[in-house]
Amino acid sequence: MNSVCIVGVGLIGGSFALALRASGFKGRITGVSSSGAIREALARGIIDEGLPLADAAAQADLIYLARPIDAILSTLDELDACLRPGTLVTDAGSTKSVICSRAAKSIHRGKFVGGHPMAGKESRGVAEAEASLFQGRPYILTEACPELEAIVTQIRAKLVIMPPEEHDRLVAFTSHLPQLLSTALATTIPAEGARVAGPASQDMTRLALSSYEIWRDIFSTNAANIDAALAGFIARLESLRARLNDPAMAAEFDRAAAAAQVLRK
Amino acid sequence: MNSVCIVGVGLIGGSFALALRASGFKGRITGVSSSGAIREALARGIIDEGLPLADAAAQADLIYLARPIDAILSTLDELDACLRPGTLVTDAGSTKSVICSRAAKSIHRGKFVGGHPMAGKESRGVAEAEASLFQGRPYILTEACPELEAIVTQIRAKLVIMPPEEHDRLVAFTSHLPQLLSTALATTIPAEGARVAGPASQDMTRLALSSYEIWRDIFSTNAANIDAALAGFIARLESLRARLNDPAMAAEFDRAAAAAQVLRK
Repeated sequence: MNSVCIVGVGLIGGSFALALRASGFKGRITGVSSSGAIREALARGIIDEGLPLADAAAQADLIYLARPIDAILSTLDELDACLRPGTLVTDAGSTKSVICSRAAKSIHRGKFVGGHPMAGKESRGVAEAEASLFQGRPYILTEACPELEAIVTQIRAKLVIMPPEEHDRLVAFTSHLPQLLSTALATTIPAEGARVAGPASQDMTRLALSSYEIWRDIFSTNAANIDAALAGFIARLESLRARLNDPAMAAEFDRAAAAAQVLRK
Repeated sequence: MNSVCIVGVGLIGGSFALALRASGFKGRITGVSSSGAIREALARGIIDEGLPLADAAAQADLIYLARPIDAILSTLDELDACLRPGTLVTDAGSTKSVICSRAAKSIHRGKFVGGHPMAGKESRGVAEAEASLFQGRPYILTEACPELEAIVTQIRAKLVIMPPEEHDRLVAFTSHLPQLLSTALATTIPAEGARVAGPASQDMTRLALSSYEIWRDIFSTNAANIDAALAGFIARLESLRARLNDPAMAAEFDRAAAAAQVLRK
């Protein structure tokens, strides 16, 4: 692999380029992005050159789609015509079923494998990119692919191979549900609550600082799973509410602490 | 003020003693606690001496009750008989109405002012005590009290004077609700979710690591406020759920981000 093209040089695309370099990649990295992002990425040495999609795609051995989901979908539609036969295409979109279905229809000359690095920040943009962003974090690939598996391992992420539907079902619980809880909590706390706010309320409303821009597409492409996760959560919370002063709460806390420990392993 | 007695030398009591020393207090600090906690507190130089309650109380100018709420309530009942007239008594219990009512009935020879430092960790015990635990955090006093106000300022906490009922209403939203959300989330995420767990699910289940021991008393002494906070939260979450793919979500995210920023000021 001699040439990688990052489409969408923001937090994730920029971090992938930096991680690739840090892992020893000596080839060429081109970027397809807004002129502001290209300028900043060039200034930080994250990419070697900014190019239009057709030119970048025609040169690349690997194309990494790191735009928001809706933009990934429209990029897939125009991408195939620009590819050299056999070019590997992957993405970093936060849901996988809709993207993988679209790629199956759109990508014929190249090979598409969906991806999702479980890393992020409340702040976006290439200015926030870090070589270490994916280290120790799960990196999901939607099917086996030796070239991509090697990269995921080289950038020190935790390789997970999982079908798109299973990915979308699980991230509804681990990522989309936490976001909605944080957003709902931030607007439930009365304004005067700030006078007594400690670390609990600050930690639990950190995700509420996130921009809606990427969430719109996540909600529209994973609505049924998110609704099911919300239903499950609300039922759990109502069950705790009904037993607030019941000795059974001790066992609930123990069970929750054990589950929280597992999420940290 | 020459002598301070810490009743319950754990994370909070130990941190208060360390913060007091760090702020320049030169007097004597005694501790009333389990023999294990006393041994550790002496070894770390957190207290000068461990004593039984009656002996410690008879010598102290300030008594700092840092046990769990239920233990604070029973300490209040036996404390008055041991006090020199005019001794100042305060506490660090997580709810204030029940404690302040009990103190009004129990403490006659001394003067009681309720307190609550908005600081904590998932881990408990004097081994976790830190001089800086309260720095920059709200420290609520339930009424004006020049001696305690001076200490709160000296240990670099943010002084907030607020009646017990208002405190309990607000912490139901800022502290008790976040705890229950985290506990409910940890047991809603399916076990296989650990394979794709990123920072969102880890941050949002951090509070679920907390021990039930202090929460039992919080739930029993603030049940009505917690129930109201839960009702408000569930209504907000159901409202987001119903509008998941509605453009109005953009405004919800903006409102939540602004509220989350206010909690950080």
